[in-house]
Amino acid sequence: MDKDKITLSHGSGGLHTKNLINDIFYKHFSNMMLLQGLDSAIFEGESGRFAFTTDSFAVKPIFFRGGDIGKLAVCGTVNDLSVAGAKPLYLSCGFIIEEGFLIEDLNRIAKSMASASEEAGVKIVTGDTKVVEKGSADGIFINTSGIGIVNKNYWMKKIIPGDEIIVTGTIAEHGTAIALDRYSIKAKGNFISDCAPINQIIGSLEAFMDSIKIMKDPTRGGIATALSEIADYANVSAHIFEENIPIRKEVNSINELLGIDPLYLACEGRAIIVADKEKSQEILSQIRQLDNGQNAQIIGHFQESKDGQVLVENYFGGKRILANMICDALPRIC
Amino acid sequence: MDKDKITLSHGSGGLHTKNLINDIFYKHFSNMMLLQGLDSAIFEGESGRFAFTTDSFAVKPIFFRGGDIGKLAVCGTVNDLSVAGAKPLYLSCGFIIEEGFLIEDLNRIAKSMASASEEAGVKIVTGDTKVVEKGSADGIFINTSGIGIVNKNYWMKKIIPGDEIIVTGTIAEHGTAIALDRYSIKAKGNFISDCAPINQIIGSLEAFMDSIKIMKDPTRGGIATALSEIADYANVSAHIFEENIPIRKEVNSINELLGIDPLYLACEGRAIIVADKEKSQEILSQIRQLDNGQNAQIIGHFQESKDGQVLVENYFGGKRILANMICDALPRIC
Repeated sequence: MDKDKITLSHGSGGLHTKNLINDIFYKHFSNMMLLQGLDSAIFEGESGRFAFTTDSFAVKPIFFRGGDIGKLAVCGTVNDLSVAGAKPLYLSCGFIIEEGFLIEDLNRIAKSMASASEEAGVKIVTGDTKVVEKGSADGIFINTSGIGIVNKNYWMKKIIPGDEIIVTGTIAEHGTAIALDRYSIKAKGNFISDCAPINQIIGSLEAFMDSIKIMKDPTRGGIATALSEIADYANVSAHIFEENIPIRKEVNSINELLGIDPLYLACEGRAIIVADKEKSQEILSQIRQLDNGQNAQIIGHFQESKDGQVLVENYFGGKRILANMICDALPRIC
Repeated sequence: MDKDKITLSHGSGGLHTKNLINDIFYKHFSNMMLLQGLDSAIFEGESGRFAFTTDSFAVKPIFFRGGDIGKLAVCGTVNDLSVAGAKPLYLSCGFIIEEGFLIEDLNRIAKSMASASEEAGVKIVTGDTKVVEKGSADGIFINTSGIGIVNKNYWMKKIIPGDEIIVTGTIAEHGTAIALDRYSIKAKGNFISDCAPINQIIGSLEAFMDSIKIMKDPTRGGIATALSEIADYANVSAHIFEENIPIRKEVNSINELLGIDPLYLACEGRAIIVADKEKSQEILSQIRQLDNGQNAQIIGHFQESKDGQVLVENYFGGKRILANMICDALPRIC
């Protein structure tokens, strides 16, 4: 047995599973709830509204500039809870690992999950590990589910014409980083995934919860898909302005070269926040005070029209409709 | 594009993902929380102790006598919550699907999840679907996570010598069913997985919560591993009697033939309940009143000894120690 690699017996539920849990997961994720070693984590909850979410991650490659599948799995679920208006509290993680996977890589991923959890202020409290034969999975898949407590003052509200659309930072960086690493494209410039927890930004908006209509993290399908979903859901149209969309020059250029529309590329550390126009400037100022929010922008607004369209206006006043994404240019970005 | 099969675009987060969710998941899992279509499910919780658990499922084959990966995924998480003393409430499900997977099979699995959820009285309230390229996964993997509310009168208690060990039904049936189906072994007899939710049985023990010390579902590694974990955790030894262990004749015989010790084979619809000896007979009688508990037995007790061993006594008074399982005879049973 190769001691550097995952074997089927690591997934048997027996001695080797126990060792793996002790040596890797307990070491990195150490907290009292997890260390009880029970099949369920038990926590005390105050009465209130809870948010519950799940995401499976199959990103390719598993290590990429600016992150890895572990960081992504923690941030993805933290961010889903955050845009539901919840303070993320507890995460679970379920691993499906291919036989032969390097234990060193698993260690690196667990360490990265621990560090992202610490940054986000959440605890990984329960988990599960399965191992499948060589060729039955692509290295490693991770599921994270999460529980948070919803802010007492936050409710999704009806979007009305004039409500403004804020994006909390530069877009398309996660998708671009994955594309470059997957296809080994060499390009000058600073291409790093934006993968990060966004709960600090949203948590800082406590005073504005009354004026926030809806929030969404633009992951698969990018801001185009996120806005299209909101427009569809709320029976309005979005009107955004290219000149206001924060995007780094090199990200824009490389995607032009690749023929990919960055509006459809995933962010993994950004939120779209729809807010009452009376308060949107104040909200923007607040977001910009945070490290990860300095490039936030108001990129447009909603307008009357029940067709659920997303309209982009370019620098010259030309308009185009963003079509619903049918097939992703870049699968397996999360 | 083959309309009968899953394609990468079903995992893109775009139009095809939406159609898949509408046509399959919303159709089968229909409930108000899920139908809101948000990234997180929101639920009102009373203050109290919550249980939170996760499990990933990679069973092979995905359809087997007595169940399928979907039923297993629902029951597995329902049962983990149940043995934590919790009433299971909400489940999440995360799918990782291989490109080319038959949509008909996905439909069958979703239907089976819906039916198991209904039997267990839980709701699937949030989900996620990822698709990976052909060859990057083995058909389908499912993660379910779950939340339950812990019975106010249930706490794990110190096990003392004399505490008795109840198993709620015949053992090793899930593992045996998987072995026969995986290796296409033809044998006379009724070999069906015991896969089922156990929350009704545990829920019926409300009046006995004070006398129950600990509960566990003997899945991977069977009752041997479950008892070994309890003994280890509680710093005592278990002493069980072969003649009291409920096992169907054909299950015993086929495993003798295959050279597999059924004590190490998974159950997916049974619980081990450790109870105060003053109350164990009453608890047993209560369990036997339920359909799925008719074959419940007291199989032994705990005794003084800090070595955490599990001792089996056979029909002739001979004793053997059940070793910690190192390598599973049968990987991927769940």
